[in-house]
Amino acid sequence: MRLSFQEIFEETKRIFVKYGMSEDKAETCARIHTESTYDGIYSHGTNRVARFVDYIKKGWVDINAEPALVNEFGALKVYDGNMGPGVLNALFATDEAIALADTYGIGMVGLKNTTHWMRGGTYGLYAANKGYVAITWTNTESVMPPWGGKEVRLGNNPFVMALPGAEGSPALQLDMAISQYAYGKLQVTRLAGKKLPFPGGFDKDGNITDDPGAIEESMRIMPIGYWKGSSFSFMLDLLGSVLTGGIGAADLDKKGMGSCGGASQIFIVIDPKKTCGKEYMDELINKAIAHVKSSAPSEKSTGIFTPGEDYVQFRKDHDEKGIFVDDSIWEEMKSL
Amino acid sequence: MRLSFQEIFEETKRIFVKYGMSEDKAETCARIHTESTYDGIYSHGTNRVARFVDYIKKGWVDINAEPALVNEFGALKVYDGNMGPGVLNALFATDEAIALADTYGIGMVGLKNTTHWMRGGTYGLYAANKGYVAITWTNTESVMPPWGGKEVRLGNNPFVMALPGAEGSPALQLDMAISQYAYGKLQVTRLAGKKLPFPGGFDKDGNITDDPGAIEESMRIMPIGYWKGSSFSFMLDLLGSVLTGGIGAADLDKKGMGSCGGASQIFIVIDPKKTCGKEYMDELINKAIAHVKSSAPSEKSTGIFTPGEDYVQFRKDHDEKGIFVDDSIWEEMKSL
Repeated sequence: MRLSFQEIFEETKRIFVKYGMSEDKAETCARIHTESTYDGIYSHGTNRVARFVDYIKKGWVDINAEPALVNEFGALKVYDGNMGPGVLNALFATDEAIALADTYGIGMVGLKNTTHWMRGGTYGLYAANKGYVAITWTNTESVMPPWGGKEVRLGNNPFVMALPGAEGSPALQLDMAISQYAYGKLQVTRLAGKKLPFPGGFDKDGNITDDPGAIEESMRIMPIGYWKGSSFSFMLDLLGSVLTGGIGAADLDKKGMGSCGGASQIFIVIDPKKTCGKEYMDELINKAIAHVKSSAPSEKSTGIFTPGEDYVQFRKDHDEKGIFVDDSIWEEMKSL
Repeated sequence: MRLSFQEIFEETKRIFVKYGMSEDKAETCARIHTESTYDGIYSHGTNRVARFVDYIKKGWVDINAEPALVNEFGALKVYDGNMGPGVLNALFATDEAIALADTYGIGMVGLKNTTHWMRGGTYGLYAANKGYVAITWTNTESVMPPWGGKEVRLGNNPFVMALPGAEGSPALQLDMAISQYAYGKLQVTRLAGKKLPFPGGFDKDGNITDDPGAIEESMRIMPIGYWKGSSFSFMLDLLGSVLTGGIGAADLDKKGMGSCGGASQIFIVIDPKKTCGKEYMDELINKAIAHVKSSAPSEKSTGIFTPGEDYVQFRKDHDEKGIFVDDSIWEEMKSL
């Protein structure tokens, strides 16, 4: 079905308040979930509300917890998220990193012991829309085998890079899990009776396959770039824990408090006005976009896209037709 | 052939002095080239000496240039590399970023208008061996089509993440170009009459292929993770220029002063003693390594490796048998 932003927001807020959140906090969380759905990231927006409620019920998210400063030095701060709502902790950390960037040009906040931040891109766009460059990532529990192994030992560790758009244009953003496909994509593709566009993992006998069901069965999803993504994911996990004094995938697995329960997150924010100025930045952005788009299309091209065009397209569609919400998801929300 | 570190270093230094470098600078550059070969990164070590000399002759590298400060704010500095030797500029930038990290916990140096830094990993390891975490990258001229396009518009933009090893162990490092395979790998594989282990690009008709010769012909190498790497590479290019006030691939192509002539580079250095302390960091590192290595091997596994094990293996081999240098490369160096 198609709903308005306000309808989704109100219903989400109602649920969060019902399960014990203060008005303020429920409002912020509901806005973020709704925005993710508005931007087409359904999996981490409205579709994730029920799971969040489940985590509250299980005691895996402490809705009353506040982040506490544990370390501070110059342009660095480290916070303990105290297992509070991941969205609120991550927004807080982004604001703190922005404040550090205002003072020092660059700032980093390490956030340990937090919970699922939902859509990683939320925090990149948040900073970019205020005029900053952001580099941020989270570690996660193990969901992917390391290269050369067949048991899950690596997180998909979403990695985000964002910067403001040129004058009058939306912010640019990369929001990328290090696995080639999410489990959600495997499921959707299987249910549609289709194959993946490219091999996405291994079947249970170790053969590379584009059959989503075979990968769901083996749980052997593949990192981007094979051995490269395996190493990248490892570094994101380890640096996540080192730069926060938090924990990595090994201990997240043991903790067993749901997806990202206890995760470590890094928020690096830089003020580009201190490195090149707005006017030249706009020139660079426009030039870079024009450059990639000037390539002749490939034979099977559906277009050449720059990072962030996807959410802009979704917004346009949702503005025109209302925001898409799966009927069963909406029913489930109503029943909460 | 197999040579000692000293033999390679002396010969490289002789060449650099002959082509006008001061003793000091020649010594530093020769050491870095030799170390890269020692670490098994032949392509950017000894094998790249002749090309560097060629760039000096063409006026594409100004061996007497020094980096000049153009912007400074808190924990940020921006330098103009003045087209000086990329290795010297990048080492200087890393040292400056380390000094900022000492003062502010985190520091960033943006370096614009520099030249090829050879092996990206040099600067990650340099910082890690001094006890720091480093995140660094360079942009490059266009060498790879964007996803959905068939003409080269993206750099391979090597991206580096490094941190110190646990007590008594070597530093960990990811040093990754965003293309799946380097042109060097395509050539070596073709000359050996082999196929690539995984598809590495498209042939001239737009078919995905593991035939290295077909990709060399079409120049359509593939980014890691398909559309994901395409976006990642775009962001590294654009942020490279924005965070230095320098230029991106579009202008590097126009400049036409060789590979990376005029490139923009980012050096982010963080002091992990300020985020978690040495003892806990060592525990995290050992735990993360043990975790990934505890996976059962896949059917075709040649081992599960953590980032940086490759250079450690090469050092061991080179310590035992002498450092490998291709006969023709050594002959060419002797003739310079």
